[in-house]
Amino acid sequence: MLVVMKAQATPEQVQAVCDYIDQLGFRAHPLPGAQRTAIGITGNKGEFNRGNLEELSGVAEVIRVSKAYKLASRDVKEEDTIIRFAGSDATIGGRGVAVVAGPCSIESREQAFAIAESVAAAGAQFFRGGAYKPRTSPYAFQGLGLDALRIMAEIRDRFGLRIVTEAIDAHTLGLVAEWADVVQIGARNMQNFALLKLAGKLRKPVLIKRGLSATLEEFLMAAEYVMSEGNYQVILCERGVRTFADHARNTLDLSIIPAVRRLSHLPILVDPSHATGRRDSVLPMARAAVASGADGVMVEVHDHPEKALSDGPQSIYPEQFALMMDELAQIAPVVGRSLPRGIHIEAARA
Amino acid sequence: MLVVMKAQATPEQVQAVCDYIDQLGFRAHPLPGAQRTAIGITGNKGEFNRGNLEELSGVAEVIRVSKAYKLASRDVKEEDTIIRFAGSDATIGGRGVAVVAGPCSIESREQAFAIAESVAAAGAQFFRGGAYKPRTSPYAFQGLGLDALRIMAEIRDRFGLRIVTEAIDAHTLGLVAEWADVVQIGARNMQNFALLKLAGKLRKPVLIKRGLSATLEEFLMAAEYVMSEGNYQVILCERGVRTFADHARNTLDLSIIPAVRRLSHLPILVDPSHATGRRDSVLPMARAAVASGADGVMVEVHDHPEKALSDGPQSIYPEQFALMMDELAQIAPVVGRSLPRGIHIEAARA
Amino acid sequence: MLVVMKAQATPEQVQAVCDYIDQLGFRAHPLPGAQRTAIGITGNKGEFNRGNLEELSGVAEVIRVSKAYKLASRDVKEEDTIIRFAGSDATIGGRGVAVVAGPCSIESREQAFAIAESVAAAGAQFFRGGAYKPRTSPYAFQGLGLDALRIMAEIRDRFGLRIVTEAIDAHTLGLVAEWADVVQIGARNMQNFALLKLAGKLRKPVLIKRGLSATLEEFLMAAEYVMSEGNYQVILCERGVRTFADHARNTLDLSIIPAVRRLSHLPILVDPSHATGRRDSVLPMARAAVASGADGVMVEVHDHPEKALSDGPQSIYPEQFALMMDELAQIAPVVGRSLPRGIHIEAARA
Amino acid sequence: MLVVMKAQATPEQVQAVCDYIDQLGFRAHPLPGAQRTAIGITGNKGEFNRGNLEELSGVAEVIRVSKAYKLASRDVKEEDTIIRFAGSDATIGGRGVAVVAGPCSIESREQAFAIAESVAAAGAQFFRGGAYKPRTSPYAFQGLGLDALRIMAEIRDRFGLRIVTEAIDAHTLGLVAEWADVVQIGARNMQNFALLKLAGKLRKPVLIKRGLSATLEEFLMAAEYVMSEGNYQVILCERGVRTFADHARNTLDLSIIPAVRRLSHLPILVDPSHATGRRDSVLPMARAAVASGADGVMVEVHDHPEKALSDGPQSIYPEQFALMMDELAQIAPVVGRSLPRGIHIEAARA
Repeated sequence: MLVVMKAQATPEQVQAVCDYIDQLGFRAHPLPGAQRTAIGITGNKGEFNRGNLEELSGVAEVIRVSKAYKLASRDVKEEDTIIRFAGSDATIGGRGVAVVAGPCSIESREQAFAIAESVAAAGAQFFRGGAYKPRTSPYAFQGLGLDALRIMAEIRDRFGLRIVTEAIDAHTLGLVAEWADVVQIGARNMQNFALLKLAGKLRKPVLIKRGLSATLEEFLMAAEYVMSEGNYQVILCERGVRTFADHARNTLDLSIIPAVRRLSHLPILVDPSHATGRRDSVLPMARAAVASGADGVMVEVHDHPEKALSDGPQSIYPEQFALMMDELAQIAPVVGRSLPRGIHIEAARA
Repeated sequence: MLVVMKAQATPEQVQAVCDYIDQLGFRAHPLPGAQRTAIGITGNKGEFNRGNLEELSGVAEVIRVSKAYKLASRDVKEEDTIIRFAGSDATIGGRGVAVVAGPCSIESREQAFAIAESVAAAGAQFFRGGAYKPRTSPYAFQGLGLDALRIMAEIRDRFGLRIVTEAIDAHTLGLVAEWADVVQIGARNMQNFALLKLAGKLRKPVLIKRGLSATLEEFLMAAEYVMSEGNYQVILCERGVRTFADHARNTLDLSIIPAVRRLSHLPILVDPSHATGRRDSVLPMARAAVASGADGVMVEVHDHPEKALSDGPQSIYPEQFALMMDELAQIAPVVGRSLPRGIHIEAARA
Repeated sequence: MLVVMKAQATPEQVQAVCDYIDQLGFRAHPLPGAQRTAIGITGNKGEFNRGNLEELSGVAEVIRVSKAYKLASRDVKEEDTIIRFAGSDATIGGRGVAVVAGPCSIESREQAFAIAESVAAAGAQFFRGGAYKPRTSPYAFQGLGLDALRIMAEIRDRFGLRIVTEAIDAHTLGLVAEWADVVQIGARNMQNFALLKLAGKLRKPVLIKRGLSATLEEFLMAAEYVMSEGNYQVILCERGVRTFADHARNTLDLSIIPAVRRLSHLPILVDPSHATGRRDSVLPMARAAVASGADGVMVEVHDHPEKALSDGPQSIYPEQFALMMDELAQIAPVVGRSLPRGIHIEAARA
Repeated sequence: MLVVMKAQATPEQVQAVCDYIDQLGFRAHPLPGAQRTAIGITGNKGEFNRGNLEELSGVAEVIRVSKAYKLASRDVKEEDTIIRFAGSDATIGGRGVAVVAGPCSIESREQAFAIAESVAAAGAQFFRGGAYKPRTSPYAFQGLGLDALRIMAEIRDRFGLRIVTEAIDAHTLGLVAEWADVVQIGARNMQNFALLKLAGKLRKPVLIKRGLSATLEEFLMAAEYVMSEGNYQVILCERGVRTFADHARNTLDLSIIPAVRRLSHLPILVDPSHATGRRDSVLPMARAAVASGADGVMVEVHDHPEKALSDGPQSIYPEQFALMMDELAQIAPVVGRSLPRGIHIEAARA
């Protein structure tokens, strides 16, 4: 914490601020400058309550210096976190580019299987599909619930895809943790701290989507909530933020990728589907995500988007997905990564 | 819904779009213009799934026309909603200006009583105090919980103040509904749809704070979630949105007041404390709120803000609160309202 | 300037940063903390070039402390700046609330005179009207130019109103300075530094509208540009900023009023017409502006807004303007101000 | 234009709106819907002045449909615009990826030549360097002016690099057009319409940087201003927009790339240096830009960034630039492009 005094502050005012800080058990370090004096605050006693500091005579501003997240920080753990899955060589956060694909919502067993088959064939290692949908309107389709979870468990068995799906409250959190491989916390729940704490008690990886107006610090604090309860398997996911720009649904903020790399050891994916809301922007942004160094992408794929019960306009076709995989496989080596391919991609290209 | 065709679209393309719309059971109305053709869509079949519409040949854009909220809309109910409380003449939404005041968090019985006494003396009709705190950091003070609810229930009995406090999950929702008079849903939970639905099953008024990046439509849709479950006693609360501006914690958006008036019958309060985060901005923004036509204000008051466990720098002193009440009482008549005063204000002024 | 070291930084790294700072002629003040060391930088040598500071081993972050504006700051001049006009008792920045009113564009002598008469009758002291219009589209009406300036000069002579109008480049700046009383720099030119410098060479008051995404510091730096050339008569004007919110054209940011008061001695007006873009929001926001402590308002008035060549939907009718004046006159005393009235208001009310 | 009526609007109100529209010489097309009636407006008479439309009884909303830009639109010209330079095979907008590189400011002949040599060696075809700097502070370094233009002209002769530099007013526009190959209009002047019109009279390519809060439509309208004066050689440049996010100086909005592709035929570059303000983010965002389909990148390179007179912290080192060129050369083929290489890249890699 740093207290900046006004230019006109008297030596007595500076002293009074120092005394106040000392009195609270911290240490004050006055730093006389050419125009103003600043006062550094150090100490071991936990968060300093700015309290009346800004109100003391002569004080111009109080600046916070230390970051609030600890477990999510590279200060605490320098090496990258890699999320692994028993019985699979898929990882999130390692040298491979993780690809999560599937429909916005699970609508039926047939639809889900058809899409799963096509994305598995193209090389995806993870399958996404909504069972519980947080919809802006109470009148919109809310998801198939437990039936959807069961369908996705079958998909895991059949295609070897790991399952990523969203939980929206305490009840569904338990169900998702039981049936799926990665528990997703949606953007609108990124600061639902009660839910984050419960997710911290799970022993399954938790994928947290960035809130629509979340700063990087808040995003990492959401991860910190989960980690502070003992669950260190946290995956971040950038999905666009809300700005004045109206040419895409949200503004995809890829510059968060190098920033997360610098400050945190956690892996970060990018969801170009929700970020842009437009099919024709998904491939360009997926390529950009991998080029920027993201640990993977999460995209919506639908075989009949015109009939999708949600998010049709942003879902890409299976053949576009195969093309995307091909493009990402070419970009990945530029950033020292690779895309799991083998027969899948070859098949898709053939 | 309106489909805008590209300038170069052929008559065949226009026809194909019309056929597609008809086929889905809606009616297409082609509108040839000087440069482009637009196609209106009407019908009775619920939400139109844009599906592949934007992908059809020749289509430039699809524009949604109808609003998704219904119960919250003035289209459905023209007269203003007024929230009343049994055994009290305090209202939210009528001719009176509702004033909710109290500390950010209940810290102790002594602190809460001292503050309650001073705000009651100055004319407040509602007392606010956090029992369950949604804090950005898992390491920050999280509230006294049930003890705080009990203290506030005593305050109601003693000072006649109605109690407003926040619930953060299903469990605390039940407790708050039992002990308090108004159940608050915080800004970070404005799109926690699971919680909103549960709040809709209560028979207590629900105060919903605007999310940090919520559009007016999303804000009204949050109200719609509560109302769609049968609870029509909803109060909106503007508390600032997140923008690039850095001179206040958030940007208080008072222009939402006339917009809510136009579109909805629900009452709306303004919280200048959380919006600005600065004590010296609370009174100016409280005055502005009432002048803009808000139904009331919600402010943080603390007798020793320098010792507050949360939000000290934005809490005003009891004497500032009394001054604020005096100022609001003078502004209220300009907008055809009044502030409940009587002996309270007189005493505060003496 | 403050350098924050990483938690793992070694004493040698801290020393190397201190040496680097000293070498550049500044003084380094290491501040060992519980987790990290911070290093304060002081010195008399002008702006410190952060240069490679953030790149040195062990450095986590560099934080700038001192503000860049000087002449616009209260640090340099504590008392409020009041703009006065020869031969008039109208002021901007004193105890009176300044009211600037008129059409978006001067369309004809008849239109301008009719509107001027009605706003003068209601008590306005300043007349605004566009002569040179900065329009988003090159195909839109661009203003009557010099003819408009001549019409407004006649209006000054006839009604005693001081004239405020916008200049958009070097050429029109000279003309506006010659014919008008206050030279307006529009929001889109707030960082047209070449124009600001030229405005600094004038000896007429300059009104600077806040840019659509200007921070408070940038806003004050625009004023500093004008003042640094010797023209200290600067008036600020808040007119809404661009955010994601879509219920008004822009988001009026009234919380900048107390912030400007705190940091600067310059007067600040509020323009609710451009901020909201909606007639039904102008009066609520004008009232809120005065209640928040603004030095005045600037509003668009048109006698036939449906025929206006620009900004019709946000122009209020003369009778609404008279009502607004009446409302502002009631609110002004609450903030220790008054609205110039006399026969004008009385007439308007009668 | 589309008028949406309120749900309660009477047939008489609908008729009155239609009559009003007809009366203004346009054609009204009523579209009765299940809940509301909408009224389409068509006509050949230029921009419809919404005027009082929103004020007529029963009107809920007025929605604008047609876009204001014409010459910049793909509706008018379907094939991509390619900017060519006499005596050079460098293009902006074709199959090649254009790379513009150089220091923020020209500081001396030595500095400029050293940097030019290194970027030419690595394959850049364009050299950028500030001669006239639009600085936020009037006290900051403002550029070497004409001397800088002369140095850059020498660089063109010596290294075959085409010169891109910024003009800030009418005077410098003439000089830059005389000495340089591409005239840059900076972000802060994107809506300096007077300057745009003058740029439209030039016969040199004009590069327009996106304003910090410019929508895509406003960005294209800035291009339209230049084109409406007869200069069709316009290059767009995305350089980040202003949002609440604080981990980078601005938020780079790459999703504008596919949107520009869809709506306009003009080429678009990306400037990752100004967008992020951080050296460690420049390469990731440059890669992402090319992967997203941008026509090229514009980056700041400095051989001694710690001594740079402006923007040191965001300038990359020559060796980082060479690495970037190598990375971009690998990504370009994925989007059907190539990077001009030959001996340059080979040399840089060796």
